[in-house]
Amino acid sequence: MADQKVESKIQIRQAKKEDMSAVAEMIQELADFEKMPTGPKMSVKDLEHDGFVRDPPAFHCKIAVDDSIVGTNPVVGYALYFPTYSTWEGRSMMLEDLYVRTNQRSKGIGKKLFKSVAKEAKKTGCSRLDFHVLEWNPARSFYENEGAVNMTKSEQWCYYRLTGDALQKYMSVDD
Amino acid sequence: MADQKVESKIQIRQAKKEDMSAVAEMIQELADFEKMPTGPKMSVKDLEHDGFVRDPPAFHCKIAVDDSIVGTNPVVGYALYFPTYSTWEGRSMMLEDLYVRTNQRSKGIGKKLFKSVAKEAKKTGCSRLDFHVLEWNPARSFYENEGAVNMTKSEQWCYYRLTGDALQKYMSVDD
Repeated sequence: MADQKVESKIQIRQAKKEDMSAVAEMIQELADFEKMPTGPKMSVKDLEHDGFVRDPPAFHCKIAVDDSIVGTNPVVGYALYFPTYSTWEGRSMMLEDLYVRTNQRSKGIGKKLFKSVAKEAKKTGCSRLDFHVLEWNPARSFYENEGAVNMTKSEQWCYYRLTGDALQKYMSVDD
Repeated sequence: MADQKVESKIQIRQAKKEDMSAVAEMIQELADFEKMPTGPKMSVKDLEHDGFVRDPPAFHCKIAVDDSIVGTNPVVGYALYFPTYSTWEGRSMMLEDLYVRTNQRSKGIGKKLFKSVAKEAKKTGCSRLDFHVLEWNPARSFYENEGAVNMTKSEQWCYYRLTGDALQKYMSVDD
């Protein structure tokens, strides 16, 4: 009952431009948790532009707000996602980040965010919700309990990236 | 010299709506190669709609055309991709599929397609080109020679998917 009471204070809503400051903070907190603290390079202005000025927006974002928090930032978690495409099943969704602040864990906030994005994926005609999780992240068991499949384990998919100089060098190639 | 002569006949160009029939064929051939022949569910009409009627398009596609092939389909390969987003580095690109017909391999066609997509990613301000490759696919060494990093190996990223009934059940949850 105590847990339910805490959870009931949490509202999930679509992020607004003015929430990007809190989201940028949490992007850094997530990178710290992932042991890659120097990863984030995006400023609040970058996020504001890419999510709210660019047309179509480069991403969508939901935030978890605890209205019982007065005087400090009530944004306690976020989920950032965007549409993708499968040549087998059509329109899909990628959940890029899902994060709940460390002092707000075990209240069901992550589950609320995940459900909200999954519902939106289904409502907007997506056949899949894809995401990446680090092997050592305890959240893997949460996702698996929700029915998500580890495709790296079941089908041996490896996640590849071309970036930095390895990508830059293609700027000058002939078509 | 013989190889160069063959390669010189190959042109990479942006796919048109009328190329989706050849692309649908090759999507099936790629699924057969990946040992998941029952995967593809998209019709030619679905691909035409999603890539050429929907605004913004759900995907972009390049094709490799061999103009020396007369009387049969000159489309010998395709690369299908779309914009994504990184909360660390901003706009990125996902290469969903890259395929060259089996009787057209070892002519540098895959490399031409890959370079063309990488160049477009860079030219359009993307910081990354991401993709997934099956562990047993010999093409992994090609991608690694091009400078791509296997993030599943280097950082232990697992690729997760919520689909089917596990996704459907969220349609009815409260927000």
